Amino acid sequence: MEKVYRAELTPVSFLLRSAAVFPERVAVVHGERRYTYAQFAERALRLASALRTAGLEEGDRVAYLSPNTPAMLEGKFGVPAAAGVLVPINTRLTHHEVGYILEHSGARFAIVDHELAHLVDGAAAEVIRVDDTGGPTDPYEQFLGTGSSSAEPLPIKDEEQVISINYTSGTTGKPKGVMVTHRGAFLNALGGALETGLSADSVYLWVLPMFHCNGWCYPWGVTAVGGRHVCLRRVDAAEIWRLLHEEGVTHVCGAPTVYVGLVNHEHARPLEREVRVMMGGAPPSPTLLARMAELRFHAMHVYGLTETYGPMTVCVEQPEWDELPLEERARLLARQGHAYLTHAPVRVVDLELKDVPCDAETVGEVVMRGNNVMKGYYRDAEATERAFAGGWFHSGDLAVWHPDGYVELRDRAKDIIISGGENISTIEVEQTVVQHPAVLECAVVAIPDERWGERPKAFITLKPGQSATEAEIIEFCRDRLAHFKCPAAVEFGELPKTSTGKVQKFQLREREWAGRDVRIGRA
Amino acid sequence: MEKVYRAELTPVSFLLRSAAVFPERVAVVHGERRYTYAQFAERALRLASALRTAGLEEGDRVAYLSPNTPAMLEGKFGVPAAAGVLVPINTRLTHHEVGYILEHSGARFAIVDHELAHLVDGAAAEVIRVDDTGGPTDPYEQFLGTGSSSAEPLPIKDEEQVISINYTSGTTGKPKGVMVTHRGAFLNALGGALETGLSADSVYLWVLPMFHCNGWCYPWGVTAVGGRHVCLRRVDAAEIWRLLHEEGVTHVCGAPTVYVGLVNHEHARPLEREVRVMMGGAPPSPTLLARMAELRFHAMHVYGLTETYGPMTVCVEQPEWDELPLEERARLLARQGHAYLTHAPVRVVDLELKDVPCDAETVGEVVMRGNNVMKGYYRDAEATERAFAGGWFHSGDLAVWHPDGYVELRDRAKDIIISGGENISTIEVEQTVVQHPAVLECAVVAIPDERWGERPKAFITLKPGQSATEAEIIEFCRDRLAHFKCPAAVEFGELPKTSTGKVQKFQLREREWAGRDVRIGRA
Repeated sequence: MEKVYRAELTPVSFLLRSAAVFPERVAVVHGERRYTYAQFAERALRLASALRTAGLEEGDRVAYLSPNTPAMLEGKFGVPAAAGVLVPINTRLTHHEVGYILEHSGARFAIVDHELAHLVDGAAAEVIRVDDTGGPTDPYEQFLGTGSSSAEPLPIKDEEQVISINYTSGTTGKPKGVMVTHRGAFLNALGGALETGLSADSVYLWVLPMFHCNGWCYPWGVTAVGGRHVCLRRVDAAEIWRLLHEEGVTHVCGAPTVYVGLVNHEHARPLEREVRVMMGGAPPSPTLLARMAELRFHAMHVYGLTETYGPMTVCVEQPEWDELPLEERARLLARQGHAYLTHAPVRVVDLELKDVPCDAETVGEVVMRGNNVMKGYYRDAEATERAFAGGWFHSGDLAVWHPDGYVELRDRAKDIIISGGENISTIEVEQTVVQHPAVLECAVVAIPDERWGERPKAFITLKPGQSATEAEIIEFCRDRLAHFKCPAAVEFGELPKTSTGKVQKFQLREREWAGRDVRIGRA
Repeated sequence: MEKVYRAELTPVSFLLRSAAVFPERVAVVHGERRYTYAQFAERALRLASALRTAGLEEGDRVAYLSPNTPAMLEGKFGVPAAAGVLVPINTRLTHHEVGYILEHSGARFAIVDHELAHLVDGAAAEVIRVDDTGGPTDPYEQFLGTGSSSAEPLPIKDEEQVISINYTSGTTGKPKGVMVTHRGAFLNALGGALETGLSADSVYLWVLPMFHCNGWCYPWGVTAVGGRHVCLRRVDAAEIWRLLHEEGVTHVCGAPTVYVGLVNHEHARPLEREVRVMMGGAPPSPTLLARMAELRFHAMHVYGLTETYGPMTVCVEQPEWDELPLEERARLLARQGHAYLTHAPVRVVDLELKDVPCDAETVGEVVMRGNNVMKGYYRDAEATERAFAGGWFHSGDLAVWHPDGYVELRDRAKDIIISGGENISTIEVEQTVVQHPAVLECAVVAIPDERWGERPKAFITLKPGQSATEAEIIEFCRDRLAHFKCPAAVEFGELPKTSTGKVQKFQLREREWAGRDVRIGRA
């Protein structure tokens, strides 16, 4: 018998509740389109019903390839309400990369924006195209029409059920599927809402892609409090400035890169009210923080990984920091901070999983556990076991612990590049470069980049008698890889090696990052 | 093996987190005393350690008889951190009533404020007296001294473990022990924080007794966000006004009764900033709401029972209500509203547990289920089963459902009186009255009271040839019952009965509440 004193935690409940309390309140804004909470809920539940009618069964995967549209947002509730599992795919990937994810996840349905339809050509999944018009001829609207307007969400039997599989590039060539649960999504959404002060008066602008860790759980958090979602098809600074002013935006998330472009845009002028900006993916620079403050953006620095539902720490700003000189304040704010109040604390540990001292000097690995850690990698028990070695999730990020308990990243143990908030597997780039007929061998490392934080650089040894130019190599990669993954620079020559012939990538990194104390890109 | 992706939910984590993030921030204010979060956590963990050293074992009960002091607050974390179970006792009870609870709960320790020490005379529990000085001669401080300053909380093995047993008067003569869990406390604390906009800048004044449903979970919610607790030994309007002004209070909870006294006090003058007042126990009257608004109190009407961790619904104010005439606004605000965003929805059902129509007319019973419902009554499987009939918790409150989904109480199915936020069992009062040698039989019902919402009235038939006065009966009860439970009025005469001789209490109620459409006291 079910326990009277227990309900399974699921973020689906947030939409039902806001639809009950705020039925007439505008929930979603998309250009001229407006949906109230009653409409938002009806559409999400219609989607659930339509998916079930089309044959979706419990646990079936539903892939999404979409910019930040109402359809994408509806999926965050409609798919789990149908007991399906979300598979949000990075829209910048190539047809080949998308194909791998669709196949690995075994997606039964793919809900795809019309601009991205070419990415699913030939896919086994049943494709539902979204024209994003909201009009009666839109295939997505027609699909919704096949669902019932009075559908009820299917009950979640176990809150530790998977709600979403988010593919992320890791240290291997192939992306891994990060499984997250209803319970984790519920708690992370509330944690984000509490840490960033969301309320029914909040207006959230969708700059951060919803495919990224499910938009850091904000589709659920903003809905929980009855706030307003402002959709955005593409990151366009002029349009963002228009929405900031005209729609009364109060909260935005994204990588610092986005805000560099924004604050330097010709339309930049101080906001009428403070806008909270949660920044993750790289620490913000002092220049950026200063310019943001002038424009009345309140920057909050958050940190996390796809494996932790997106951000799970926040650099809580202490009131006394206000009086410090900007450089000093920025230095403090560039730290990754403390775990959210809903989460277990993060630790910085040595190789024996013992805490390093809080001396701001000893470097250790950041490890996490608890409700904000993924359930595991989909269909990859070995990688899961490795990631969970010793009963803790290993972030692969190297950090010091400050005397005030704030964590600060210093370097990466994992061979990975984070560029504009996106993970890039160096191995994947290397494997692509060496397919070029002139290339003998290749090593890719991160180099610092003012705009993107980090970008990949390829060090290449050519085959004897062969030749190739930097431009040729880059072009070759762009035909095969998502553009953000392609080398920003190429250098030809011998690769440094150990006596046994192993490429010493750390030497290449050392050279590129010389003179910097923190080897994590900063934008 | 423990799951890497799961941490048991417990509000103990909130104190550890705030101590890590805000160690130097003032957490607790008590007159001239100030404790930072580092000190608050150290004291709570010392308490846990001292209790363990004194022999407390997992699941042992620790009773509290205390006004809203730092010691009481520390117990909300220290007892669960020691894997103990809180038993907060209403300080207005008599020695006899307290004795029953101590015995029924099997409390191993009783932490008792010096003013209430007489209530535990002769108790089996080990008594730790709190002089509430914070000084070295205070027995409580000496007890803390026996604990370790570097104690760690014991891990919670299962979030559904009981954190507290809260005794409440029900429809039977004896109070029942409401068991609540770590999970429920965690979620209710966050729900309250989100619904009432708590943040690290919040200053919470402790007007509501912490023995009442653990202060509606605010010891945990305020601590979670790193807000400030302002303690208060007694509800004294002059002192409350001083604290409101001098301590920068932003949030208060309590029954409307308290605010009636406050707004009419000679020190009442408009606040410099808005103070949010969560009111439960009775709906606020239009007069009270109007006066509160003048003084910049922002009233929020909440509803719940001890069995639901205190409030679990809130009458969410819609922006468009602002433009309505006061009487109309007050009428809307007097409704109990919707469940918190963290909770499953409440329902209003008929005898077959089917939803009544949302027509604002059909009366049904309010039922709840989910994480905000008690685990059961301690050592009372029968009462638990009755309360959970059909898989829902039966509130015993009769309500209508409005077309906008707001629940509004109309009457009670349970024979219970709620006076100034305190439950009174009519049976308990009747059983006391009939002990008077002149009384033949007695029926107690609620009568409306402007200050307390409701108060008990006793209808008495005297034995042939005997006599007694109203004052004598009341005095007789005051010697045997908590004063708030004693009849406010006595009427002598025949009791209305059925043909089979059963007293028809509803007839007495009908008479007393004639001309009112809502038969729930309003203060």
